[in-house]
Amino acid sequence: MDLSSPDAVPQGYWTAGPEPRATSLRGVETWDAIRARRNVRSYSDRTIDPEHLDRVLEAGRRSPSASNRQKWDFILVTDRAPLQELSTVWVGAAHLAVAQAAIVLVLPEPEAERYVTIDQYDLGQATMAMLLAATDLGIGSGHSAVGDQEACRRILGTPADRTCAYMIALGYPADRPLAPIANPDRRPFDEVVHRGRW
Amino acid sequence: MDLSSPDAVPQGYWTAGPEPRATSLRGVETWDAIRARRNVRSYSDRTIDPEHLDRVLEAGRRSPSASNRQKWDFILVTDRAPLQELSTVWVGAAHLAVAQAAIVLVLPEPEAERYVTIDQYDLGQATMAMLLAATDLGIGSGHSAVGDQEACRRILGTPADRTCAYMIALGYPADRPLAPIANPDRRPFDEVVHRGRW
Repeated sequence: MDLSSPDAVPQGYWTAGPEPRATSLRGVETWDAIRARRNVRSYSDRTIDPEHLDRVLEAGRRSPSASNRQKWDFILVTDRAPLQELSTVWVGAAHLAVAQAAIVLVLPEPEAERYVTIDQYDLGQATMAMLLAATDLGIGSGHSAVGDQEACRRILGTPADRTCAYMIALGYPADRPLAPIANPDRRPFDEVVHRGRW
Repeated sequence: MDLSSPDAVPQGYWTAGPEPRATSLRGVETWDAIRARRNVRSYSDRTIDPEHLDRVLEAGRRSPSASNRQKWDFILVTDRAPLQELSTVWVGAAHLAVAQAAIVLVLPEPEAERYVTIDQYDLGQATMAMLLAATDLGIGSGHSAVGDQEACRRILGTPADRTCAYMIALGYPADRPLAPIANPDRRPFDEVVHRGRW
């Protein structure tokens, strides 16, 4: 594709092609997925193929972690009732009520103080892998923190020694489809990037 | 490509094609990059095109963060002397001495207790975006923690109120090129993934 026109949507990528998306696992180029990922919080009523959800989960499972500890469990929720209940566990989770699915990322108690931060870093890596795997398939994603642990535990049946750390809502965008974004709302490159030293 | 043979290296992807990799930014499909990323800690002496390094950094810059806070700075290091020095700031950082480049992820002091974990989660997301952008271009990556903050600060000139959180070493693999991995060393899918509830 022509990298000089980053907003162009390549034919047959996220837009409907001769093969319906829901029955193919054809994705897009990595750089397109990285540039097209955005927070999506309103979703169409189109359901997500189970095979596609499994691919998103597989991307998370494959993520790296400190000493390959993999201290995560992923709960896939697709039923409307628990999605609606989960939308109340955090002030920024309302969009889960209308999502087609959500993946809840669960952590055990860290076995040492230093893992408090490391496990979060590793969950961040797994999250990004899943967001990009979803984007690759045209699926919008919007993640959220979890405030009310008691409620999350009751809704999902997680054990008392686990924490519901984050939730990733999934669904096809209700508004515009995913496409590479030319100028994302971010700090300028030359402010973020230091060359050689600070 | 044929997804049923995940170890196949697509022609013209990571392998040398008619167009030399170093002068093109042609990448691979997202799902291939996700499956091909692995920790690479021994590197060939081939240098990395500056344009490719910038693309990796741009992937990090575009990452999502809580309330779009973007509490990160990235220091790109390509000179041999500081790379060798950085290889001593953590017991697991020896591979930086032979890397072609490293990106050091720097965080400010969190402004509230709750950001201690959130900033780490966000750094994890930025890290994964950069690892996959590197993989997309055939560049191997191996990240590392930072133990000796004093040393890192001295080597890179970071202010006293910043922490060198992680380092990402980059270079073309000295052994086998990147290619999708069929069976990564991870917990089984059905153990990690819970359906509906715990």
